Amino acid sequence: MHTLTVETDTTLRGTSTNANRRSIVRIGTVEIGNGQPVIMAGPCSVESYEQTLATAEEVKSAGAVILRGGAYKPRTSPYDFQGLGVEALQILTRVSEETALPVVSEILSTDDIEVVAEHVDMLQVGARNMQNFALLRRLGQLRKPILLKRNPAATVKEWLLAAEYLLAGGNSQVVLCERGIRSYDPELRNTLDLAGMALARQLSHLPVIADPSHATGRRDLIPAMSRAALAAGADGLIIEVHPDPANALSDGKQSLDFPEFRSLMDMLFTRAPYSTLPSA
Amino acid sequence: MHTLTVETDTTLRGTSTNANRRSIVRIGTVEIGNGQPVIMAGPCSVESYEQTLATAEEVKSAGAVILRGGAYKPRTSPYDFQGLGVEALQILTRVSEETALPVVSEILSTDDIEVVAEHVDMLQVGARNMQNFALLRRLGQLRKPILLKRNPAATVKEWLLAAEYLLAGGNSQVVLCERGIRSYDPELRNTLDLAGMALARQLSHLPVIADPSHATGRRDLIPAMSRAALAAGADGLIIEVHPDPANALSDGKQSLDFPEFRSLMDMLFTRAPYSTLPSA
Amino acid sequence: MHTLTVETDTTLRGTSTNANRRSIVRIGTVEIGNGQPVIMAGPCSVESYEQTLATAEEVKSAGAVILRGGAYKPRTSPYDFQGLGVEALQILTRVSEETALPVVSEILSTDDIEVVAEHVDMLQVGARNMQNFALLRRLGQLRKPILLKRNPAATVKEWLLAAEYLLAGGNSQVVLCERGIRSYDPELRNTLDLAGMALARQLSHLPVIADPSHATGRRDLIPAMSRAALAAGADGLIIEVHPDPANALSDGKQSLDFPEFRSLMDMLFTRAPYSTLPSA
Amino acid sequence: MHTLTVETDTTLRGTSTNANRRSIVRIGTVEIGNGQPVIMAGPCSVESYEQTLATAEEVKSAGAVILRGGAYKPRTSPYDFQGLGVEALQILTRVSEETALPVVSEILSTDDIEVVAEHVDMLQVGARNMQNFALLRRLGQLRKPILLKRNPAATVKEWLLAAEYLLAGGNSQVVLCERGIRSYDPELRNTLDLAGMALARQLSHLPVIADPSHATGRRDLIPAMSRAALAAGADGLIIEVHPDPANALSDGKQSLDFPEFRSLMDMLFTRAPYSTLPSA
Repeated sequence: MHTLTVETDTTLRGTSTNANRRSIVRIGTVEIGNGQPVIMAGPCSVESYEQTLATAEEVKSAGAVILRGGAYKPRTSPYDFQGLGVEALQILTRVSEETALPVVSEILSTDDIEVVAEHVDMLQVGARNMQNFALLRRLGQLRKPILLKRNPAATVKEWLLAAEYLLAGGNSQVVLCERGIRSYDPELRNTLDLAGMALARQLSHLPVIADPSHATGRRDLIPAMSRAALAAGADGLIIEVHPDPANALSDGKQSLDFPEFRSLMDMLFTRAPYSTLPSA
Repeated sequence: MHTLTVETDTTLRGTSTNANRRSIVRIGTVEIGNGQPVIMAGPCSVESYEQTLATAEEVKSAGAVILRGGAYKPRTSPYDFQGLGVEALQILTRVSEETALPVVSEILSTDDIEVVAEHVDMLQVGARNMQNFALLRRLGQLRKPILLKRNPAATVKEWLLAAEYLLAGGNSQVVLCERGIRSYDPELRNTLDLAGMALARQLSHLPVIADPSHATGRRDLIPAMSRAALAAGADGLIIEVHPDPANALSDGKQSLDFPEFRSLMDMLFTRAPYSTLPSA
Repeated sequence: MHTLTVETDTTLRGTSTNANRRSIVRIGTVEIGNGQPVIMAGPCSVESYEQTLATAEEVKSAGAVILRGGAYKPRTSPYDFQGLGVEALQILTRVSEETALPVVSEILSTDDIEVVAEHVDMLQVGARNMQNFALLRRLGQLRKPILLKRNPAATVKEWLLAAEYLLAGGNSQVVLCERGIRSYDPELRNTLDLAGMALARQLSHLPVIADPSHATGRRDLIPAMSRAALAAGADGLIIEVHPDPANALSDGKQSLDFPEFRSLMDMLFTRAPYSTLPSA
Repeated sequence: MHTLTVETDTTLRGTSTNANRRSIVRIGTVEIGNGQPVIMAGPCSVESYEQTLATAEEVKSAGAVILRGGAYKPRTSPYDFQGLGVEALQILTRVSEETALPVVSEILSTDDIEVVAEHVDMLQVGARNMQNFALLRRLGQLRKPILLKRNPAATVKEWLLAAEYLLAGGNSQVVLCERGIRSYDPELRNTLDLAGMALARQLSHLPVIADPSHATGRRDLIPAMSRAALAAGADGLIIEVHPDPANALSDGKQSLDFPEFRSLMDMLFTRAPYSTLPSA
């Protein structure tokens, strides 16, 4: 019933893999997809220079190698905080120079491509824009890395075909990001689909990372899901960190504070991930 | 919006945890929940003494400590193979004695409780029966361990409340099993909800295991999902293994053959699960 | 991609239709499936003789022809009201005799088949038990009409195959009931799947009714959904009515009070359902 | 548990209704929301002048009052037919003049707003762009009617908040369109959520129509779902019609041919929608 026809699907011209070829995407000096998991971290929204710098320094010292931060925020309501825009981009550039961390930030509109591309090292296409084909086509002509989030109602194949728009345009620097699919349990913001993530990684040569912050919407589940994502083969993680989550302008409930992030990094990379086989 | 009220919910009288208390459930000499992951493995259906014995010996030598095998099979169609019933139970008992592996098998009906309880060490309540309250009430009166699978459309709270039926009846030897929720991608049989599994484990003191075979329906994703489930905190795994999956009477597509299972166990318990932090 | 193979599926031996044959199921003098929509109504739970009689008289005078009322209630929590059991069955029998309304009530367990079948005219298999195959097999041997609700995560084919268990046992007096599938919008209890209902009616010869009360969980949407279900071809409706919904022991939010039910029946059967074509 | 807080939600500043106020949106001489259902029909894609004219004349003579036709097509794969673009817009304008039917067509990109607005009477925001906020903001500044389709994973509230972007910009000529939510049954392309549609209509003053073509993906279910949508209160329908569905460049499986559309219109507006109450 579930025929596995994706691999031979001729529409996956650019993304499908053969001979176990795997791509590496370079963001500055950082490589995504080389076998070492890459951690991107930072605030949901850039709120000020001070908040961004403090967060960048903290996440760098804990082991993150890319700074994330929202300048243009896609908000369900037009009356919610929409991001600082160009001002946020300028803050990101300044903090990036001061910390030597490359920066990823979301692009919402074709109108902003030039200014965003000028200020950041990697452009994120958010979940709501995964099938904004006008945007994808324009980003396909860019020569900057793209982080393509999965739409919460997209199949793995639809996600790969969205990436195909980028590759068809000539931009092969694409990293996929699983951030949870829509589901029915009110205790969780979304359902982190690690099997879908593993399948995307198996069917394509593109690096794939996971976003446990948006996927769960709950600070207390981020450690377990971060560990699980890496164990499932993720090439990296993107995690929301804020100096004071309770007063964040967006997504505070799912943001880690500094000690929580440090503890997560310690757990992921220092302690033994799980125990040895019990004797029968 | 997603208030996390489950913990203080007075309806979770028996399952909710306090002071980090965690239960250990004993199946013969095997402990589930003691920090060491427990692997249950075996065929979807018991088809013959020879098939069951060969599988039991193989999975034991690879490190499994509990034998699974279906005697009564819940089948979507009344015209499909329904299991060998009592004959299968007798085979399971004989193989259990010969291999010293305790046995878990599914119970479909209150009518069969006595005969199933007599032959097996742990009774499984399948996903379709998670809210078969008549069955749960009778199993609450039993003094044998129960493996309670999550229904593919159940919230975490509904799952815990189903367990509550067992505990309210006096049977506290309950292990929860996440086996995938219903979703929309035709490439995958279900969506393995590891965050839901981690949440269930966080909200209750009961051990929780994962079933990557049913959750994915795809042999090629079982290794990644097994590793991810353990990394997310699973107390164990239940995995379908068959000497000849292509000719299995049920669920062949998701069954591992012997070398695949051995390779999985080697990957899970011998090799390093994931790498160290990349330098920035 | 969506091949429509159900019609020719050889597993639908009993339910699939040919030559536009449609079955009529008789409950006492009431026919379901003869082209005239049949309204079943009554309280979620039988709470007392007085409440049941008052409701029965009211719904009958408004046009309902079958009385519904729960004696055994499937409840998510073991600590919630579980129904009055045999006492409720006796109340239903008495009220049925006094009002000449046949009665439908839910059966939860094979243990109760005899006593329920003795007291009611039609046995309901609830959504949670749609794949309780032990129950379905026993009800297949009964010679009483069955109301088979769709499980909130079942495909149309799985629903028809559950009916197939009843027909394979020799009981062809089966009515299907769509009661909403699980979905993600917190404003609605479930999603009423009228296309699934219409498809089930198209693929099989069995009558199909809709339950707008459980499907929406909201009193204010029941009129629109009742009308839509009949327009989509439903052979009837089952609707929860209570003398005092605010004090109902179960499902008060989705129960109509007496004036609301009367107004619904008036709207469904008296007023013109929708207007004529606008001029261009 | 499901508190109905949307109505008083202060974020629904522009869309929420009071005192049963309902808006009427005018497309040329056609009014949507005046109590008379409005039928929009036409091909999925504009393929040629001849195909478009033939379809327009046919659907007009059967009672449709607005012509639909895709010029820019959002396609899951970049290698599929993407629409004729400006050439299609010119065809639509010519056919509109010759048939006196106003035209609705999809807008995919802010870059195309000027040219699309010049050629068509109503701009459609497709399901994939429901949360393309850059596009919504620009369309909020336009003074042309907008048809806003619901994203297949959007809650009713998220859909209304997307409309809020248009109204906040000053464009109050907004019609909502329910076109099916993502679900799990492979027999159906989507699940038509008529309760969600009715709820959107109840919570806002905007007209709401249904798209049974995309919602079901099956020609054989369009009549039943069209009837159901109108019975649930839809202010209109949008239906795909093609002279030769088997050779359509897109969505042939869900397109009606001319006799099927005529038969649908006859059923909807001539014959009695459903029967009278059966006698008990």
